[in-house]
Amino acid sequence: MTTGLAGELIPAVPRPTPFAVQERDTASSARRGRLRTAHATIDTPNFMPVATAGTVKGLTPRQLIDAGAQIILSNAYHLSLRPGVDTVEAMGGLHRFMGWDGAILTDSGGYQIMSLAPLRKLTDEGVRFQSHLDGAKLFLTPEDVVGRQHQLGVDILMPLDECVPAEAERSAVERAMRRTTAWLERSGRVLLRPDRHLFGIVQGGLDGTLRREHAARLAAFNHPGYAVGGLSVGEERGVTREVAAVTAAALPDDRPRYLMGVGLPQDLLRFIAMGYDLFDCVLPTRNGRNGTCFTAAGRLNMRLARHARDAQPIDPTCRCEVCRNFSRAYVRHLCVAGEMLGAQLASLHNVHFYLGLMAEARAHVTAGDYTAWAAQRAEAMDAGERA
Amino acid sequence: MTTGLAGELIPAVPRPTPFAVQERDTASSARRGRLRTAHATIDTPNFMPVATAGTVKGLTPRQLIDAGAQIILSNAYHLSLRPGVDTVEAMGGLHRFMGWDGAILTDSGGYQIMSLAPLRKLTDEGVRFQSHLDGAKLFLTPEDVVGRQHQLGVDILMPLDECVPAEAERSAVERAMRRTTAWLERSGRVLLRPDRHLFGIVQGGLDGTLRREHAARLAAFNHPGYAVGGLSVGEERGVTREVAAVTAAALPDDRPRYLMGVGLPQDLLRFIAMGYDLFDCVLPTRNGRNGTCFTAAGRLNMRLARHARDAQPIDPTCRCEVCRNFSRAYVRHLCVAGEMLGAQLASLHNVHFYLGLMAEARAHVTAGDYTAWAAQRAEAMDAGERA
Repeated sequence: MTTGLAGELIPAVPRPTPFAVQERDTASSARRGRLRTAHATIDTPNFMPVATAGTVKGLTPRQLIDAGAQIILSNAYHLSLRPGVDTVEAMGGLHRFMGWDGAILTDSGGYQIMSLAPLRKLTDEGVRFQSHLDGAKLFLTPEDVVGRQHQLGVDILMPLDECVPAEAERSAVERAMRRTTAWLERSGRVLLRPDRHLFGIVQGGLDGTLRREHAARLAAFNHPGYAVGGLSVGEERGVTREVAAVTAAALPDDRPRYLMGVGLPQDLLRFIAMGYDLFDCVLPTRNGRNGTCFTAAGRLNMRLARHARDAQPIDPTCRCEVCRNFSRAYVRHLCVAGEMLGAQLASLHNVHFYLGLMAEARAHVTAGDYTAWAAQRAEAMDAGERA
Repeated sequence: MTTGLAGELIPAVPRPTPFAVQERDTASSARRGRLRTAHATIDTPNFMPVATAGTVKGLTPRQLIDAGAQIILSNAYHLSLRPGVDTVEAMGGLHRFMGWDGAILTDSGGYQIMSLAPLRKLTDEGVRFQSHLDGAKLFLTPEDVVGRQHQLGVDILMPLDECVPAEAERSAVERAMRRTTAWLERSGRVLLRPDRHLFGIVQGGLDGTLRREHAARLAAFNHPGYAVGGLSVGEERGVTREVAAVTAAALPDDRPRYLMGVGLPQDLLRFIAMGYDLFDCVLPTRNGRNGTCFTAAGRLNMRLARHARDAQPIDPTCRCEVCRNFSRAYVRHLCVAGEMLGAQLASLHNVHFYLGLMAEARAHVTAGDYTAWAAQRAEAMDAGERA
């Protein structure tokens, strides 16, 4: 599948949104919705476990389904370098390659090019960089980036954008915004299957005015959904929240809002209250590999000696496969002994925890008590982190 | 649970065997049998995946059950050092600790003390050594070793033995035999629950006469089963086979025969023909972690470039979860990218492969064509290894 060939392909924008809001919280902007994609209908708010290189680290697709995952996030930059987009396409596309039948969203890799690739040089035409794996010299245009994701066969595609660090000056932020906008316009003309969705990505640094301006500009392009990028790049948590709130309010209410790359579970509850619908974050699996587990009372370091004879499950309120079958004592033993299964069980529990929290959030939007519930849950987790 | 306390405990030997031969091959000594234990009835011949530290590396108990595992092997030496036998007992025993409801056999740790522990000194009384983890000085008698396994709550216990290297002189082999015999006599007087089984371990180096002598000596103790130790310690494969054959023939026909720590799948088929019933080996999981997979046509190194776009499953004749869902190309990608899931999937397939081969072996004993089938299967695997 390549762009610009088949007759059934149509430009990425404008096209109708596959998203519908079903219920709204009364005391906040939280909403419950459904996002239809070629492979799955996603109940929102929802969380996407991260499968950077075509695998959610340590978990099988079966375990992801059992944990309730409907959509996962992969990364076009990483897959382009290894095993290569052509290889994935030859193997039947990313879904078939990794044995995952749910929905997949791929990040474009813009952020990874900025953070990982040596000798990168951005021009209005595109980005020149070296592979962080083997030093190979590469040049990608915005059209290439969308085309590669289309080749991968994913459900939701992200455009190439320019992401600036937290300390960037206003002029650099404005230049990145302009370039991101121009690249998105070009991306929107790429021909895609009608059931594939290219989201826009709002940039604008940490300046609320610029964020509002960029959100309004992109809204006019009529993308089926919008992501907010460039947050959690080193700024304080309070600043993230302020900018995220301003940006959400400036985005069209009838499109799904995806806040990229954040965050702690208690933060997700606060972002949901701002009207965000989709999240992704490496924390559940990265923390899991380090033996840190999420619970309703904050994170636990499973390696601590105090868990050595603790017969309780990781989280006594959790009904996941890990918490139904294993004690803290056992998970601690595995983590201390450096056993692979420790990382697997901790990651599996953590992914369950994030997905379960999203399911609860949806239920509380429906029940009409989201705000009170979320405040109490977030406070309990924050209190655990301070203890 | 401690030895020498409760009224329901009885000496380890003599006691009736929980093993019954059900069917026999006509052209070899292969037999099909059943071994009843407190947690599971084991169909033999069978293979025990290795769970040294209380986990089959990379696999959940659920996956082991789905792979058909009935019994796994753990190690009392490793568990004694970490997390400690008292801790496992306090957590309800090893089955509950690791969430495994099937049978468990523990190795005594004699072999690990010889191969891992620094400053070890054997006397007729027992063994003095340092922990390879923290240097703690320890002294264990044969009674301690059995008592600790009883505390762990396992189904089949192994006595402390002295294992000599392949190059040991005859006098050293004879001394080790005598000590192993004396230790086994003491072990047999330890009081155990009636549904726990202490096997004897035949030593005797690489000398057929000594092996026969030791087997006959131990047979008189009337243990419920016998293991053959001290093989695959550096000798040539042909020598292993010869000594294994001589030893099997010298052991009582009505007791299960367990050949410790071997080997390649094709070798297991040959040992089954000699009358062995139980096996354990780290190969399926250790090779799995290195990206090497077992197939009906020998081992595959999954990292090779020739698998990059190979849409076949690891073994086209295999029906395991991995082979039903993933291609060689995907497993290769995971292994090359250093993704944990690569080690998990390769290990899961390999354990399936070993257990499936045992199930086939049993079926062919029943069908009466074991010898022809095993010869053909073993030759196909050997041919693959040579290719």
